[in-house]
Amino acid sequence: MLLERDLLQSTGFRNVREGGRVTGFQFRVRMPSYRGMAASLIDGIAVRVGDLVDVGPDVPLWTFGGRTYTLPELWDGDGVRWPLEDAAIVTVPLEGGLPDGIHEVSIELRLRMSYIPEEHQPSTYRVTRQITLSPEADGGPFRYGVSLYSYMTDYGTVLDLETALAHVADVGATGVEILGEGHIAGYPEPTAEWIDRWFALLDRYGLEPTNYGSWIDTRLHSSGSNARRLTVEEGAGMLQRDLRLAKRLGFRFVRPKIGVVSSDLVPDPIWTESVERSLDLAAELDVVICPEIHSPTPIKHPVVDDYVDLIERTGTKHFGLLLDTGIFQDRPIPLRPGELPGQRPAFLDGIGVDPADIAGIAKYVVFIQAKFHDIDKHLEDQQIPWEPVLRALKDAGYTGYLSSEYEGERTPWRSIEQVRRQHSLIRRVVAGL
Amino acid sequence: MLLERDLLQSTGFRNVREGGRVTGFQFRVRMPSYRGMAASLIDGIAVRVGDLVDVGPDVPLWTFGGRTYTLPELWDGDGVRWPLEDAAIVTVPLEGGLPDGIHEVSIELRLRMSYIPEEHQPSTYRVTRQITLSPEADGGPFRYGVSLYSYMTDYGTVLDLETALAHVADVGATGVEILGEGHIAGYPEPTAEWIDRWFALLDRYGLEPTNYGSWIDTRLHSSGSNARRLTVEEGAGMLQRDLRLAKRLGFRFVRPKIGVVSSDLVPDPIWTESVERSLDLAAELDVVICPEIHSPTPIKHPVVDDYVDLIERTGTKHFGLLLDTGIFQDRPIPLRPGELPGQRPAFLDGIGVDPADIAGIAKYVVFIQAKFHDIDKHLEDQQIPWEPVLRALKDAGYTGYLSSEYEGERTPWRSIEQVRRQHSLIRRVVAGL
Repeated sequence: MLLERDLLQSTGFRNVREGGRVTGFQFRVRMPSYRGMAASLIDGIAVRVGDLVDVGPDVPLWTFGGRTYTLPELWDGDGVRWPLEDAAIVTVPLEGGLPDGIHEVSIELRLRMSYIPEEHQPSTYRVTRQITLSPEADGGPFRYGVSLYSYMTDYGTVLDLETALAHVADVGATGVEILGEGHIAGYPEPTAEWIDRWFALLDRYGLEPTNYGSWIDTRLHSSGSNARRLTVEEGAGMLQRDLRLAKRLGFRFVRPKIGVVSSDLVPDPIWTESVERSLDLAAELDVVICPEIHSPTPIKHPVVDDYVDLIERTGTKHFGLLLDTGIFQDRPIPLRPGELPGQRPAFLDGIGVDPADIAGIAKYVVFIQAKFHDIDKHLEDQQIPWEPVLRALKDAGYTGYLSSEYEGERTPWRSIEQVRRQHSLIRRVVAGL
Repeated sequence: MLLERDLLQSTGFRNVREGGRVTGFQFRVRMPSYRGMAASLIDGIAVRVGDLVDVGPDVPLWTFGGRTYTLPELWDGDGVRWPLEDAAIVTVPLEGGLPDGIHEVSIELRLRMSYIPEEHQPSTYRVTRQITLSPEADGGPFRYGVSLYSYMTDYGTVLDLETALAHVADVGATGVEILGEGHIAGYPEPTAEWIDRWFALLDRYGLEPTNYGSWIDTRLHSSGSNARRLTVEEGAGMLQRDLRLAKRLGFRFVRPKIGVVSSDLVPDPIWTESVERSLDLAAELDVVICPEIHSPTPIKHPVVDDYVDLIERTGTKHFGLLLDTGIFQDRPIPLRPGELPGQRPAFLDGIGVDPADIAGIAKYVVFIQAKFHDIDKHLEDQQIPWEPVLRALKDAGYTGYLSSEYEGERTPWRSIEQVRRQHSLIRRVVAGL
């Protein structure tokens, strides 16, 4: 497990209940010293949350190793420790708790260092940060998940698998989506030990596997003197390898990303036969193959017609459509430093598919990747119009997963808070439909 | 294991030998995509190093899973993969290799993405970065180590224990220093499993435990209604707890950081008896207790006289001095944003102890923490005058460890490259003595 860099962690910021009543809220704090220390060296933490909360350093409670203490209990105690590697859990009593959304939280943490002259003591650490409360609304009729794609670049540099799953669970999600060749160590042949740990982690964090991303790498052998195209046999082999592995790990959906042969992303013609040859296996495993409808391809497009045609022609229940909400983007992704308008693909400005188009394909849609790029501190998405999209999905009778796919700026740790914001935002919108 | 954020990793940048000859150099590259991929999708990597090297994309060799391939071998191969979680090792042939020091390395990495239109292919990633070659000079008469304190704030957020030890080993260090309550999970009672893993990691990375940092927390119970001073029994108990644990983990030195009672860091008077009561145990365990001489306390100071007096009085071989090179700092640490001169303790400008003072205490010095704050891209330390310090240590006959203690800016990942620079710098200076 790894901690976020900020002392004040996003993950863990939530209301707390006793019996059925919300009696306060809590958050996690990383140890600011370079070492862990006995908890009796804590001299309290003052907490402010916007205009809602302002409590002195002796008010909050402290949780270490699953036990909760008042400050005087820490002072009198012996053997309770705040380890360097674990965040302290700070609980602030507040009848009814905090409202859902983003809050400006300020802390003033005091620690006693025996090796610093007393006139400079206690050591005081002040931090103010916008963090998002774990949402409480149940969010029906949809189910909520997160794709580990959201943590791209953070994954493997500031997050490991367990840390990622802990972040996912903390937004109240019940589903986790992965990329096969990305999040499975030793892909395509993970060890039995890795698989055991995968299920143990799912259990610990209360998550179920949802969708598994795979690739049909049609250009696998297109460099070199023996360059050649991928055959149908090879394409089907790749897909079937991932169907089997996905099933072993408990996934119900597999999204193959298929190589393209044109500027407007028409898939390599081998896709049809590669899929058709795999439908029996998909049925046997009870896994649904679901290519994505992804910007710049809109819903009304020959590629989508071909997917639907395959379903109708074969009558399969194991092929469906995955909708990526990036197609509804109606405002541009900001230019990067040095980037000029017109120098980049036009679809980055958003292809603005009309959410009303969902109705025409709704019965084939089995999974939704809730693609987004930037949600600001007022909980407003800068690119995706969630209200009409979610309304159209609800009206179309969709009751499956909305699986977060954060695709914005890759500043370290940003993804964690952005995913929290999206879950808060979507549940708020859904509650108002 | 976690990777550095930059595509071009600092750790792993080294010359390579075949037989006794240096035949090239190598470095590690993080996968820039959001997924791992078959290595036949690599379309090469062009490499430049200052004015020394400029090779095309097909020249470097690639190592995955311990096997090395040419680019055509990757193209023709099947089943070789570049996993998301592992850096690729890129080897560039160069008779005689690169000279020690910091190099500006540029790469242009090309990967083939089947799902992107061909006119935008291959995907090309360009990075230029200053990185430090693992030094080759043997560095005698000193031995070389790193304190995990160097990675403060990175540790637990972008580094785990194994990653930290891999970084330490990669500078050619043979010793590792830790903080007991900081780097031992479950301190003060690590599990048997943790201890087994500790020794397995030491073995894997060819490291020996050197010094173990502990605390005598004299203000453990100085808050609350029952506030009281720490007793000698408690002080001795803390020290003995850490002596025992240090021994179990293979350490030969324990540095207790003792609580202070004055502005100029005079230790709490309980230190003497706490130490004296622990000398028999230290002898039994064959561990040396060594408090540090640390800025703002210079070498010529009553505190140091008291330490020496204890050694002379008791005749012990299990108490000595640890010298922190911060006392030789002769140029200021830069002001932080918003900080004004005169608003901070004067010692941050450096107390500039004369390295000639080392001679007077040399026979008591058992360990050196090579404290530093900033080494620039010309391999020049901005605060510590290494040449006279290292000369004085050599002249005094010191042959023990120089254990890096980076204490500069805590920008994520900065510590890794700073430690590499220090090891390169010190070995260069030592070679010239």
